[in-house]
Amino acid sequence: MLNKNIETFIACDSEYSDAKIVLFGAPFDSTTSYRPGARFGSRVIRSESYGLETYSPYQNKDLTDVPTFDSGDIELCFGDSARALSDIEARAQLILKDQKIPFILGGEHLVTLGAVRAAARAHSDLRIIHFDAHADLRDDYLGCALSHACVIRRCYDILGDGKIYQFGIRSGDKSEFEWGNGRIFTQKFNFDGLRGVLRDIGIAPVYLTVDLDVFDPSVFPGTGTPEAGGVSFNMLLEAILAVCNEANIIACDVCELSPVYDQSGASAAVACKIVREMILGIGGNT
Amino acid sequence: MLNKNIETFIACDSEYSDAKIVLFGAPFDSTTSYRPGARFGSRVIRSESYGLETYSPYQNKDLTDVPTFDSGDIELCFGDSARALSDIEARAQLILKDQKIPFILGGEHLVTLGAVRAAARAHSDLRIIHFDAHADLRDDYLGCALSHACVIRRCYDILGDGKIYQFGIRSGDKSEFEWGNGRIFTQKFNFDGLRGVLRDIGIAPVYLTVDLDVFDPSVFPGTGTPEAGGVSFNMLLEAILAVCNEANIIACDVCELSPVYDQSGASAAVACKIVREMILGIGGNT
Amino acid sequence: MLNKNIETFIACDSEYSDAKIVLFGAPFDSTTSYRPGARFGSRVIRSESYGLETYSPYQNKDLTDVPTFDSGDIELCFGDSARALSDIEARAQLILKDQKIPFILGGEHLVTLGAVRAAARAHSDLRIIHFDAHADLRDDYLGCALSHACVIRRCYDILGDGKIYQFGIRSGDKSEFEWGNGRIFTQKFNFDGLRGVLRDIGIAPVYLTVDLDVFDPSVFPGTGTPEAGGVSFNMLLEAILAVCNEANIIACDVCELSPVYDQSGASAAVACKIVREMILGIGGNT
Amino acid sequence: MLNKNIETFIACDSEYSDAKIVLFGAPFDSTTSYRPGARFGSRVIRSESYGLETYSPYQNKDLTDVPTFDSGDIELCFGDSARALSDIEARAQLILKDQKIPFILGGEHLVTLGAVRAAARAHSDLRIIHFDAHADLRDDYLGCALSHACVIRRCYDILGDGKIYQFGIRSGDKSEFEWGNGRIFTQKFNFDGLRGVLRDIGIAPVYLTVDLDVFDPSVFPGTGTPEAGGVSFNMLLEAILAVCNEANIIACDVCELSPVYDQSGASAAVACKIVREMILGIGGNT
Amino acid sequence: MLNKNIETFIACDSEYSDAKIVLFGAPFDSTTSYRPGARFGSRVIRSESYGLETYSPYQNKDLTDVPTFDSGDIELCFGDSARALSDIEARAQLILKDQKIPFILGGEHLVTLGAVRAAARAHSDLRIIHFDAHADLRDDYLGCALSHACVIRRCYDILGDGKIYQFGIRSGDKSEFEWGNGRIFTQKFNFDGLRGVLRDIGIAPVYLTVDLDVFDPSVFPGTGTPEAGGVSFNMLLEAILAVCNEANIIACDVCELSPVYDQSGASAAVACKIVREMILGIGGNT
Amino acid sequence: MLNKNIETFIACDSEYSDAKIVLFGAPFDSTTSYRPGARFGSRVIRSESYGLETYSPYQNKDLTDVPTFDSGDIELCFGDSARALSDIEARAQLILKDQKIPFILGGEHLVTLGAVRAAARAHSDLRIIHFDAHADLRDDYLGCALSHACVIRRCYDILGDGKIYQFGIRSGDKSEFEWGNGRIFTQKFNFDGLRGVLRDIGIAPVYLTVDLDVFDPSVFPGTGTPEAGGVSFNMLLEAILAVCNEANIIACDVCELSPVYDQSGASAAVACKIVREMILGIGGNT
Repeated sequence: MLNKNIETFIACDSEYSDAKIVLFGAPFDSTTSYRPGARFGSRVIRSESYGLETYSPYQNKDLTDVPTFDSGDIELCFGDSARALSDIEARAQLILKDQKIPFILGGEHLVTLGAVRAAARAHSDLRIIHFDAHADLRDDYLGCALSHACVIRRCYDILGDGKIYQFGIRSGDKSEFEWGNGRIFTQKFNFDGLRGVLRDIGIAPVYLTVDLDVFDPSVFPGTGTPEAGGVSFNMLLEAILAVCNEANIIACDVCELSPVYDQSGASAAVACKIVREMILGIGGNT
Repeated sequence: MLNKNIETFIACDSEYSDAKIVLFGAPFDSTTSYRPGARFGSRVIRSESYGLETYSPYQNKDLTDVPTFDSGDIELCFGDSARALSDIEARAQLILKDQKIPFILGGEHLVTLGAVRAAARAHSDLRIIHFDAHADLRDDYLGCALSHACVIRRCYDILGDGKIYQFGIRSGDKSEFEWGNGRIFTQKFNFDGLRGVLRDIGIAPVYLTVDLDVFDPSVFPGTGTPEAGGVSFNMLLEAILAVCNEANIIACDVCELSPVYDQSGASAAVACKIVREMILGIGGNT
Repeated sequence: MLNKNIETFIACDSEYSDAKIVLFGAPFDSTTSYRPGARFGSRVIRSESYGLETYSPYQNKDLTDVPTFDSGDIELCFGDSARALSDIEARAQLILKDQKIPFILGGEHLVTLGAVRAAARAHSDLRIIHFDAHADLRDDYLGCALSHACVIRRCYDILGDGKIYQFGIRSGDKSEFEWGNGRIFTQKFNFDGLRGVLRDIGIAPVYLTVDLDVFDPSVFPGTGTPEAGGVSFNMLLEAILAVCNEANIIACDVCELSPVYDQSGASAAVACKIVREMILGIGGNT
Repeated sequence: MLNKNIETFIACDSEYSDAKIVLFGAPFDSTTSYRPGARFGSRVIRSESYGLETYSPYQNKDLTDVPTFDSGDIELCFGDSARALSDIEARAQLILKDQKIPFILGGEHLVTLGAVRAAARAHSDLRIIHFDAHADLRDDYLGCALSHACVIRRCYDILGDGKIYQFGIRSGDKSEFEWGNGRIFTQKFNFDGLRGVLRDIGIAPVYLTVDLDVFDPSVFPGTGTPEAGGVSFNMLLEAILAVCNEANIIACDVCELSPVYDQSGASAAVACKIVREMILGIGGNT
Repeated sequence: MLNKNIETFIACDSEYSDAKIVLFGAPFDSTTSYRPGARFGSRVIRSESYGLETYSPYQNKDLTDVPTFDSGDIELCFGDSARALSDIEARAQLILKDQKIPFILGGEHLVTLGAVRAAARAHSDLRIIHFDAHADLRDDYLGCALSHACVIRRCYDILGDGKIYQFGIRSGDKSEFEWGNGRIFTQKFNFDGLRGVLRDIGIAPVYLTVDLDVFDPSVFPGTGTPEAGGVSFNMLLEAILAVCNEANIIACDVCELSPVYDQSGASAAVACKIVREMILGIGGNT
Repeated sequence: MLNKNIETFIACDSEYSDAKIVLFGAPFDSTTSYRPGARFGSRVIRSESYGLETYSPYQNKDLTDVPTFDSGDIELCFGDSARALSDIEARAQLILKDQKIPFILGGEHLVTLGAVRAAARAHSDLRIIHFDAHADLRDDYLGCALSHACVIRRCYDILGDGKIYQFGIRSGDKSEFEWGNGRIFTQKFNFDGLRGVLRDIGIAPVYLTVDLDVFDPSVFPGTGTPEAGGVSFNMLLEAILAVCNEANIIACDVCELSPVYDQSGASAAVACKIVREMILGIGGNT
């Protein structure tokens, strides 16, 4: 008798009841304004993870030691953002209710909003740490309030002043930077000031959202809107490990891999390694 | 003193007032269910048209003899299909009101619905001739009624029984074929029966919609949902010329070039030639 | 409580005990002499099958009506052909023992040998129907007897004279054609004579092996050794349906999709449709 | 002691003195008006020929039986067409003087002019058989008389009326078709009339030039100016074999493979097979 | 009444009479010695600029505040370098005469020569600041004096000793480096010494030419001759801003984007951002 | 009379008897566990070397001053690793016997084992300096002892403790790192400690093996297993020059370019430059 074909991110094969972290994919990209394709990000992260080892020489930890469950991709309706966000929110809420950490694999950055809604309901003092090239602080984009270009603004609508910390930002229109001033902590271009932010946050619950276009396009061409002047792999890894070690992460996501734009597979390999290090960083600290 | 940089489909540079045909692009693909990217179709058809000659040895006509105006791409809001369709409808209506023939360059196939709404209001006895691999007759797709997979069903909602003629269809779910039976004329796989249909239609006003995935993927890999077993270039050209010669085309579109999936540029070249032949076929018959 | 992420060829989600057909992938390409990459064929056929409908307008049948189980890919050792063939043989034997039809997704063509060994043991009067561009009748290739270029010769070693029928062959060295003469039925270039062969075979058990490079490279560029002058999609489909309708297929395979060489995805889409039609053709005849 | 690394088109390794046919590459594309890259055609034809067998099941002949010498690529100066043509002419002349058949691998189609100059000097009653999508009959292109778009016009300047026979032509401006009328034999779209032309030519010396864009882009996307509506592999092969069998070919070329535009390698494989069949067809008739 | 389709680099839509900077494209690559394709650079920079914001967080300036006119691409004759250079010179001269700053988008690097001729005639004490991987100081290349490999040598012929300053150079033949010694300021590999050079130049008029292959190929693979060991985006940006802030730039160019070699679009995105920063740096200093 | 077409790495055209260094290609990749294709590495390094200059501004040396012979690629049997390694060993042994330095162009990393066997027989106190992302210290991979993932372990079987020095390692399973501890010198992530190692080695004979995936994937996406977090071009160049200057290199290799995964050609250009610098560094020290 043969077994069914179960596919997971490498080594994320624990039982749901035992899992500390629960992965799910949110294959959505309908509001992408420039080049679509992030819908295929989660699927490719899962399949290409088999090019990785389970062991991290950076953290001296192994995925086999962190109980993780991969629940696959949600089926989302293209062209109806509100409905897609509800579905994402429901999945995240279920995982949070079971005292597990939801780890969303995008999809475009708008998917973060669904998960943040669930997280903010579960944790009243939620903070967001946001790594990205783009400020994503528009109030609307061509008249649309539910757009990847507005996602952090929508999160702000929920959390209010002083709860969101952005790093690596190097693109936005002038009004976004002006509006954010005093409401959002914005570190342009790099991760300077992260240690101080982590001290300020202390033990408050944190949602970590990583838009992979924070990388320089040389490192990560496989994304909808490559933005020159980004960070290196080692810079982002160091920042992520700092957050994982210092902060109380209760949910997280990795977004905006659009595999069709990098046929070398290097962007997928980079994304997989970031996911591995985040699982180990968040889940290996018990 | 230097001139502004005006870009058109090759030789479509007449004044608006003189034009018989008016091109516009509808760069929208938010409801694409499989692989997005058709939003770049109109732009690439315009730029790659410079690989063509203006003269057709098939029709012995030249684009320089058909007054055509290219009004560029409409700016459409990704993620809000209803709004995008309104914008397309408005543009088509304006052109029809001026007694010109709107020629829409998609975009995904849903954009047809906007133009058909305008055409049906302008012409009470409208017929649709539809070349496609897919029946597009679903009532909804994952709960969404405004989807590229439902576009002909939505057109049917406007026109009713016996006004829509499909050719080349080779994909759909079982219920689509069953539902269409008696309501829609469906010729599977090829163009058999087209001459008879054209005789039946006579002088009634016709909207011609060409989903380029009617082509075999060997001819046209650059599309969101390649579907094996399609027609050759010469077969489609012959069918289009028959329609142009026999029918009273009052509006038309060419959809679903998704250039990123064919980096050879061959699909774009094929699409450009189809557009040239349609302009010549429709506009050169005076 | 969330479910595990089970991935199958579209709609092949029956229980093993209920299944008539059992799919498995054989991701192996170590002996490929020209361009490797067929190891990724089975995985891509599975993931890209979601671009298909489950319904076939060619056969008026639906995958949901044919109980099929997808047992995923076997993990094979690259660089040790003998071991890989044993593993494939064992899997096929288990499925045959349970009175089900094994359907192997390659991988390179050598994987056929493993399945044919199992099939020949289970069925003493086995015949092979072989669609391919290449004769694959060498006795060795650069000294190696277990090579994709020798696979049909190795099958001949098992079955002997008059049991193997090749169609579409358009490449080989001179000695292969000469050796085959009188031992193997070889139809060059096309499927002429297939009806007669099917009459001769009658009810004898048949292993059908489809090397997808039998297609013209225009239809199927995504393969290790594209060979100009092949058959169209409709030609191969018609031939396959003839075999499915007339012959007693007890096992089959589809080989040599190498997805990296066709970044349009058209070759994968073609392969998926062939697999769908074969499942429906073989399984839907009860 | 190790040998030097000699690279040839597969099996074209005879000594120069023994050779009947002499290959050389003309890696030039400076006048290409649309997409350059044909300069890499000859190199890729040489390297990818190792994906072929030496034996042709079409002609039942083997390259090992036709003494052929591959003299590699000439080093040509980009940006100076006149100088490049002189260098090509000199090489062709040398080969013709030695009573051998020069076989030029382009490069863009302009390279034909160099070889035709040499051939016309060596053979006073020279005819040209020309397979192409494009008429190439312009008198100049943007003021330049030495352009790939003018190459057959320049050949006409040498040969005069009634000596040039074109087939497969489906692109040109109106004036080219009009000018050619009565001066050049032009068969649009296909090879109809080829048998009659071959009868008329009889034993006169023939230069055969094959611009590979005569193929449909589905068969041959890897070219600078893909032109929809072309011929299939089997159609071109049949035409070439007819010429080889009936005509007295004294020189020939194969042009316009631009490999960067077809990353599947299928176009290169098609070009290699055409070259193999031409060598066998021309050289195997003794 | 619909408007004509005007296409410009993003936000470069002022009237000519109001413009401080005038863009034009020089789509030429006939002398490229390795891999052609830079002819498509200007067109792609224009179209891909819509992936950028108009606002620069580096300079806190916005393109909407710098009056810029984009006059599109000149139509140049491939294969005749002298004529192409004349056309470029004429366009640059016209713009300079109107007291505006010409900003040329290449094209291969040879196009710089046309613009430098015009600039040197307009400004007697002209200096050139040259960022590049290649010295471009050959006296000829395969006998051709008008080659991209000779362009700075040709500029030297006009300006003479001590007027040209190269940075980032990491490729050339030995004799180029030896010849340049004492005639040209050459900083190998990086931008060390740029501040000193800017001090020396003072208020003299400067032509800034940026060959984008000065970038490391990881940042900018989309170029004809990628040369390992180049500079990062931040390094080049800093150098450009230093020149814009300190020097009196009277004309400039950005060359050698060859988009076909980077299908991710990252190189185009990088080029667009460099153009934006140069427009802001040059034009925003009033 | 025309010459045969001899193809070499640029300028490596000395006579064998005069050569100090002898290149050969080992086009093998049958044991690659993730993505195959390194078999085409040596061929592409040879052909793309013509994009380089022969002169190095890093070392102020020229390839024309280092007598080097390129003996082309060995023909290896795919699917039989033991036989392929024997063939490589024999070629390396022949070169070593003639007191020349063999320089192997891979192919996958397993090819190193063949050359190390020959080198260890010729030099009793051999050391290996190993630059790589992967430890390659497994005892077997899926039961196979001759695998690219085991190659350094197999070298250890020959050389024993304290003779192998690894740098740049950032991937392996936990047991590899543990096993290596005390047996192998392993520097994770970078080249720290290289100077000390070189002092310790002194004049002992050294085999230098460079697995190009030691590079960051941004620099070198064209490899089978891209591993994020690698070194830059300048870092690797500096390390290689240090080894060349300080150590007594008696044989070396460069492995794991898999050109199909980087269609920009940048990886090939990087590999070519590394080969040039190694030839100059090793051969130019007389």
